[in-house]
This record gives sequence, C-alpha cells and structure tokens, in this order.
Amino acid sequence: MDKLKQMIIEKGEVREGNVLKVDNFLNHQIDTEFLYEVGEEFYRLFKEQEITKILTIEVSGIAIALMASLFFKVPVVFAKKTESLNLDKDIYKSKVFSYSKRKEYNIMISKRYLSKDDKVLIVDDFLAVGNAMTGLIDVTRQGGAEIKGIGIVIEKGFQPGGKLLRSQGFNLKSLAIIDDMSNGKIKFR
Amino acid sequence: MDKLKQMIIEKGEVREGNVLKVDNFLNHQIDTEFLYEVGEEFYRLFKEQEITKILTIEVSGIAIALMASLFFKVPVVFAKKTESLNLDKDIYKSKVFSYSKRKEYNIMISKRYLSKDDKVLIVDDFLAVGNAMTGLIDVTRQGGAEIKGIGIVIEKGFQPGGKLLRSQGFNLKSLAIIDDMSNGKIKFR
Repeated sequence: MDKLKQMIIEKGEVREGNVLKVDNFLNHQIDTEFLYEVGEEFYRLFKEQEITKILTIEVSGIAIALMASLFFKVPVVFAKKTESLNLDKDIYKSKVFSYSKRKEYNIMISKRYLSKDDKVLIVDDFLAVGNAMTGLIDVTRQGGAEIKGIGIVIEKGFQPGGKLLRSQGFNLKSLAIIDDMSNGKIKFR
Repeated sequence: MDKLKQMIIEKGEVREGNVLKVDNFLNHQIDTEFLYEVGEEFYRLFKEQEITKILTIEVSGIAIALMASLFFKVPVVFAKKTESLNLDKDIYKSKVFSYSKRKEYNIMISKRYLSKDDKVLIVDDFLAVGNAMTGLIDVTRQGGAEIKGIGIVIEKGFQPGGKLLRSQGFNLKSLAIIDDMSNGKIKFR
C-alpha cells in the first residue's frame, strides 16, 4: 500500500533496537481518514473470505479492526490483556511475552464472542516475532473458529513472525513489509 | 439516544456493585454499525464547537472517538495508561484510580499531540465517579488546549461525576443517563 509506505517514510521514526515509532498516525494519535483507507484495503484483500468476525488485540489493533469492519459489516472482537471485574470468567486464554512492554501477559477472549461457525479475519498493527499473533491464533482455535486471513499493517520482514505464519499456511497479507531499518533508513520489500 | 437505551436494556447486564456490562456491543465485542450512529450523534451535539481534536483514553474510548472523528474529520488522540518503550519521554501526565481494575495508574499524552491551539472534544464510554475524566481534563489543560465539550456514551447518574463536571461549567452531554440500577432494573433519566 503505497500511501502507507509514504506515511511511514514521512512520519515514522526509527529508534534504537529496531523500534519503528508510528504514533503520529497509528499508535497514539490516529489519522482516521488514512485508517479508513487501510480498512478498505483489508476489505479488498479479504472480501472473498466470507468473514463473520474481525478479531484483534487491544490497544492499537482496535482502530484498524474497526475501520475494516465498516467495510465487512461484521462485529469486531478485541482480545483483552488485563483482568477486569467486567470480564467474564468463562474465557479462552493464551500467554504472550511483549518485547516493547518487557513483560508476560494473558490474551483473553470471552467464550461468548467466538463460535465454531465464525470465519475470522485477524488484524493487527505490527507483526515482528509474532508472539501476539500466535496468542490470537491460539485463542481463536480454542473457540473452534476458522482463521480465513491475517491482515497486518506493518510487518518487520527481518524478524521471523511473517515467515513462520506463511510456512504454517496462513493467508497472511501485510500492507507494508520492512526488510531493513538497521541503519535508521527504512527499506521496504 | 433511544437506540442506545434499547441496546442497554436488551444486551446490557447489571452485575453486583453497580457494574453495567455492555461488552456485547461496546467493551469487548464492538457493534460497528451501532457505534457509527453513536459517532454521528456526537457530531450532531458538538458540531458547532469547531473541534480540532478528539481526545479519549485507552481502551474502550478508542472505538467511540474513532467513529466520531469520521464525522468531525479531525485526528483522535488516545491517552495511554501504560508505560512503553514506544512512548515519548516528553509527556503530560495525571494520576487516576480505577475502581473496575482496583489500582492507580497514570494517564499520559505525548506533548506533541496536544497544543494550545487545539479545541478538544473528550469522549469516553462511561462516566461514573469521574476519575478518568478528571485525569483527561488535567492533561488537556496541561497542554493548554481548550475543552469545548465532553461526550459520554453511558453516564451513571447516581454517581457524582456528571454533577461535578456540570457544576464546573463543562459542556457535558451523555447519550444515556442511568439514574438507578440498584435492584437490577435500569431506570433512565
């Protein structure tokens, strides 16, 4: 997606430790108009898949899933990372390690919102090592739902997540794949 | 907003401790089509205010802010609750106590995304005691921005937040105000 690459070049910032900061338009401030186009692009890529539910994980995945769901006209379910009085006791759960937060957490989805009949599109902002995605896949499978596609906004192609998921046969599409940013300059695939 | 009241009656669940669970359409599963109407309603209520930015707090405020921003055509900024390697060091910060999570946390906004020239609409899913909202108001004022309106989806009218904010002169509009749900039955204002 050319506009995304342009946004990354113009507004993204490469930080130490292969961190790409895109909080100008995606992770803290949200450029809604642009994200609407991201949603439309995911629809173009996955519209043949008879999607019944769009699944993501809090926090940054929510805006992306929501924009996609405007086109798919199906509900969003976002997996939770923190326990709350408001969360059901009856949940699917998977353990994940976050590099950016440097801690382990649970991915949780209430059993009510995922069924055997669901055909799921999973979306997220970043794919790097693939820990969060592996957790999302795990909870989706616990619910017996079928994973029809995985849509990623920015894939760090120099990390193993994308390769792993493709080798497992997932229908994974990334709107931008970064192959290198080690010297501060972003090289797209 | 009649449709919201209907959704609360049909799909909400009253739990012990005056907890209203609306995770069927707002807090876990998101009914995008309905939330689009919520965004439109906030636009109707605040469109005269020359809003330049919609401010909210992760997690559940994001979807609401995003839908409103589709109509206002301005960016969303969501305050963060957790430290991250990706967050700027240069932030506005306010301390808040959460009843549902039973812990204190910081509300944080990068100084880049709030300026003296901003006319802000703050939105959130719930208003009860008003702790999170007081924190959002505090960080907005630290940034020197003007608060032109506060839009709430569900106000618990039997708790003091709404009364407090109105007495302070804020242009607060709630799409549904619950005056009582103590016996499990919801009574709207």
